[in-house]
Amino acid sequence: MIVLKAAGEVFCSGHDRSEIVNAPASSIRRLFQTSVNMMLTIRQLPQPVIAQVHGIAMAGGCHLVAACDLVVAAEKRAKLGMTGIILGYNCSTPTVAVSRCVGQKKCMEMLMTGKLYTAQEAMAMGLVNRVVPDEELEEETMNWAKEIATRSRPVIGISKQVFYAQAEMTEWQAYHYAKEMMALNAILPDAIEGFSANIEGREPKFPEELG
Amino acid sequence: MIVLKAAGEVFCSGHDRSEIVNAPASSIRRLFQTSVNMMLTIRQLPQPVIAQVHGIAMAGGCHLVAACDLVVAAEKRAKLGMTGIILGYNCSTPTVAVSRCVGQKKCMEMLMTGKLYTAQEAMAMGLVNRVVPDEELEEETMNWAKEIATRSRPVIGISKQVFYAQAEMTEWQAYHYAKEMMALNAILPDAIEGFSANIEGREPKFPEELG
Amino acid sequence: MIVLKAAGEVFCSGHDRSEIVNAPASSIRRLFQTSVNMMLTIRQLPQPVIAQVHGIAMAGGCHLVAACDLVVAAEKRAKLGMTGIILGYNCSTPTVAVSRCVGQKKCMEMLMTGKLYTAQEAMAMGLVNRVVPDEELEEETMNWAKEIATRSRPVIGISKQVFYAQAEMTEWQAYHYAKEMMALNAILPDAIEGFSANIEGREPKFPEELG
Repeated sequence: MIVLKAAGEVFCSGHDRSEIVNAPASSIRRLFQTSVNMMLTIRQLPQPVIAQVHGIAMAGGCHLVAACDLVVAAEKRAKLGMTGIILGYNCSTPTVAVSRCVGQKKCMEMLMTGKLYTAQEAMAMGLVNRVVPDEELEEETMNWAKEIATRSRPVIGISKQVFYAQAEMTEWQAYHYAKEMMALNAILPDAIEGFSANIEGREPKFPEELG
Repeated sequence: MIVLKAAGEVFCSGHDRSEIVNAPASSIRRLFQTSVNMMLTIRQLPQPVIAQVHGIAMAGGCHLVAACDLVVAAEKRAKLGMTGIILGYNCSTPTVAVSRCVGQKKCMEMLMTGKLYTAQEAMAMGLVNRVVPDEELEEETMNWAKEIATRSRPVIGISKQVFYAQAEMTEWQAYHYAKEMMALNAILPDAIEGFSANIEGREPKFPEELG
Repeated sequence: MIVLKAAGEVFCSGHDRSEIVNAPASSIRRLFQTSVNMMLTIRQLPQPVIAQVHGIAMAGGCHLVAACDLVVAAEKRAKLGMTGIILGYNCSTPTVAVSRCVGQKKCMEMLMTGKLYTAQEAMAMGLVNRVVPDEELEEETMNWAKEIATRSRPVIGISKQVFYAQAEMTEWQAYHYAKEMMALNAILPDAIEGFSANIEGREPKFPEELG
């Protein structure tokens, strides 16, 4: 489990503008390749990544939130938005991740207005899993992380990988891939332990290694 | 019209674990090919399939619900979830159908937690069309089925097929296909009857055959 | 900015049935090619298009709403639906646009029932951005249009184009494209003005041309 949190008032305000303004295109290309690599790394990690959003997450910060697997946000202080348009700068790379969680009309609205949305609004839009009171954010996020951490680690990794991989396939392709994963997962020690525990009416004991 | 309902307390708890635990991979591959074939058959049938969910639908049972065209769920007793992770077993094939109705963050949450969601929660997530009081589930589902059954059968079949087929295409491809279906449908007897009835201010009389 | 509104009681009831009933397939193919061309033109315009929906938008009218970038609807009189099935005529081309804003189960419900949904229901389904009191529809839509019109016009155009183009790509493809757009946008005069204004603590002044 990885919990992504931030120090200070803001969760993440995106890229440092001094790396963008008046920089040559080649250096901006490198900058955003690095940013994209980080977002893709979050997707490829076998561990789930939870964003613990305590304050404003805007532009690249909103991208970071959307790139995480699960999102817990503070009811009052968390605010999320693709704010680039205010500076005459389209949130192109954030759009890739945000549009994969948020519906078409709302995503277009985010891009056209640059508005910051409350945690509740962001949850209704599909960008946030849980909204909690600000003072309980840390505890609630940790509780959730600990609960997920009791599961089988290799199978959590499979669940995450299958989810994102099949999302890029047609349904037909996805079923062919998913069927093989059912077979592969069934013969893993963790599934055998899980099913056995279930049959014997006890809690499963999954090994702590990644498998 | 097909209404899929179940006897007993549970709607569907998924696959029989005795067919999975300690079975060879080849037999699990066959098992899930059969399961996938059934889900694809529901999609390919010209009749709409309504899941009438009166109790728990978990793992493969949740898959079955997601694979149906329409879902009516009982307010108190229906519970839906991809619970495999609890047993160390990823709901890979269910993910294919569930992720096509449920947003990214909520689908990932289902997979990571294995939680059972209430009918209301499942409706908010996009997995359920209508939530009704438990004691009215049968009647409300039948009323809905009967209402849809008054429509033209071949055109219900076209609507269903076009919906799923175009979902796998780019917008550009989808428009080319959909345009031809508008032409083809317009010259069917049922469209001519429907438009004529509308012009003459009367109810259309569609033949009872599939067309 | 383009605001699409209508005169009369109805927003848009779709195609003229006299152009469809008993027309030869070739003429219906031409008719729907024209319709599709219009919908694709709305998508390709560099200006955002807001649908100001004051009344019923059904069949092709619902398609038109879904094809717009943003949708404001009147709380009481706006009603939206894919109603073709009532006449034995599948809303095939509308499905292409509607299914790209509305979740699978709700979209299938629209197609099977032909029901008209209230503005609030349509907003919950992802087809509408904002619901406003009927008597404030014109003013609220214009206020929103004016707010967006203060943004950089070329960058609004980029935002819109990137959104729809990347939606047709895998995440991997989309990131490659989006990364280049970050570089290209950063060296546009409007981004330099936007960032400079932000650094200097003043409002940006974007030129009024399209760029």
